[in-house]
Amino acid sequence: MAGDSPTPVTVVGLGSMGRALAGAFLAAGHPTTVWNRTPGRAGPLVEKGAVPAESVADAVAASGLVVTCLTTFEDTRAALEPAAGALRGRALVTLNSGSPSGARETAAWATAHGARLLAGAVKNVPAAVGAPDTLLYYSGDRSVFDAHETTLRALGGDTVHLGEEPDLAALYEMAVGAMLLPALVGFFQGAAAVQARGLRAESMVRFAGKWLDMIKTLLPVYAAEIDSGDYTDAASSVDLFLTGAAHDDDLAEETNVDTAWLAPLHDLLRRAAEAGHGGHSIAALTEVLRKGA
Amino acid sequence: MAGDSPTPVTVVGLGSMGRALAGAFLAAGHPTTVWNRTPGRAGPLVEKGAVPAESVADAVAASGLVVTCLTTFEDTRAALEPAAGALRGRALVTLNSGSPSGARETAAWATAHGARLLAGAVKNVPAAVGAPDTLLYYSGDRSVFDAHETTLRALGGDTVHLGEEPDLAALYEMAVGAMLLPALVGFFQGAAAVQARGLRAESMVRFAGKWLDMIKTLLPVYAAEIDSGDYTDAASSVDLFLTGAAHDDDLAEETNVDTAWLAPLHDLLRRAAEAGHGGHSIAALTEVLRKGA
Repeated sequence: MAGDSPTPVTVVGLGSMGRALAGAFLAAGHPTTVWNRTPGRAGPLVEKGAVPAESVADAVAASGLVVTCLTTFEDTRAALEPAAGALRGRALVTLNSGSPSGARETAAWATAHGARLLAGAVKNVPAAVGAPDTLLYYSGDRSVFDAHETTLRALGGDTVHLGEEPDLAALYEMAVGAMLLPALVGFFQGAAAVQARGLRAESMVRFAGKWLDMIKTLLPVYAAEIDSGDYTDAASSVDLFLTGAAHDDDLAEETNVDTAWLAPLHDLLRRAAEAGHGGHSIAALTEVLRKGA
Repeated sequence: MAGDSPTPVTVVGLGSMGRALAGAFLAAGHPTTVWNRTPGRAGPLVEKGAVPAESVADAVAASGLVVTCLTTFEDTRAALEPAAGALRGRALVTLNSGSPSGARETAAWATAHGARLLAGAVKNVPAAVGAPDTLLYYSGDRSVFDAHETTLRALGGDTVHLGEEPDLAALYEMAVGAMLLPALVGFFQGAAAVQARGLRAESMVRFAGKWLDMIKTLLPVYAAEIDSGDYTDAASSVDLFLTGAAHDDDLAEETNVDTAWLAPLHDLLRRAAEAGHGGHSIAALTEVLRKGA
């Protein structure tokens, strides 16, 4: 633990999320060193008190706690490679998306250089960094989490350690994140459809927001079905969704929107029905998604 | 208007949603007549005071306000056909999913039989019917909405009339509803992935719920981009999503989950990048979804 004075921290990677992270550390009073491969990103942070490092090795050497915010694990290792000699004894916290295998490789790489890795993810947008309800989850070296939990909490009040295995956060990141692109494309399709009618996309925002609230209420129900393997209490059955799927072609025709991306989803519904899940809960699609199912 | 005593209402179609609707009318003190093609569904409602009709014609004749809750517009017209002679002068309120063209056909059909149509949708699950925050939207004959708004509000406090065109609610129902199946399949894929690791689907529910909250905050931003056609202020770019897409194959391999359904979404990303949207907001996918784009 740092004792009474705020722990010095280094932030490597100053994209919009990295800048938000460094800003949150500064706001919490942490001496903050920053570095970005492309210069010129640190300006506003320096005005708030951040110290710009001359090199990534200097940046890593400056603090016992090094937080990276690059796009992938591969980018992270590549950016830190010139600083590998300075990593010994450091607590390395990675905040990026990426595969579980990338997290494991990065943990092994960090260990080889004498650093301890905590691999995490920010489950929100840059503007939400630092808010009491903002979720960040981490996995990997528990001693790093315990030593720096208070410091990390400056990034978001809902800060969680998932377990010692370094790839757990990446696994959850991909599992939870899997809703994002499909949900957004659904929204964009809807926006294109209302615009084809001469209406504004804005007019569906309130309704779509409530629809997401409704979907949120379904998740614990479906998770319980998936964990039990019992899909027989079907509030919304596969067959009901199949009925709805038939209207997607109508929408495509009426609104000049390309709904072809939905075809594999309709195919999943049909395969589930063929496997005997027609009258079962839509959550039975989980069984069809397992390879070899 | 009904004056001081609650308006009598008929509910046709007693699936789980129809039963919830009838229950809400009963709870609000409305004399409620019920009918279902398959008998035996009315029992618990009759115990609460509902009057079971002998035939659909009797059901329609019993009340000036007739609410249907069948699966599609086609089902609705088929169920009401034997009662067509009783429809004259009735306010007919349909609550179902279906295509805008189905709504228009049903409005014409109702008009031909001397009824006025309000075509709506319940944007929630049966358990939420009657709650102050539950959303229902309607389109079609404004006089029906004005005369019966208080009665309809018994089904949900967030009750909206979208406009006189009878197919507007169906359009929004499809536009807004387009997020549901893709988002759920994303969640199911994630559940299969964490289960492949020996973890419970339940363990991702809280995180997924917060993720939906985050997605909700993005919708007004993306709607504004779509309405303006300006995608240049990219908090999350098409290229960033393309980077993430590369990990989907890793996930499939690691967790034995079939991610093939994502291929058309990845293709949309590539097409958007090829069209010059790589550095633009992910909302630029809307442009690619327009047919002939």
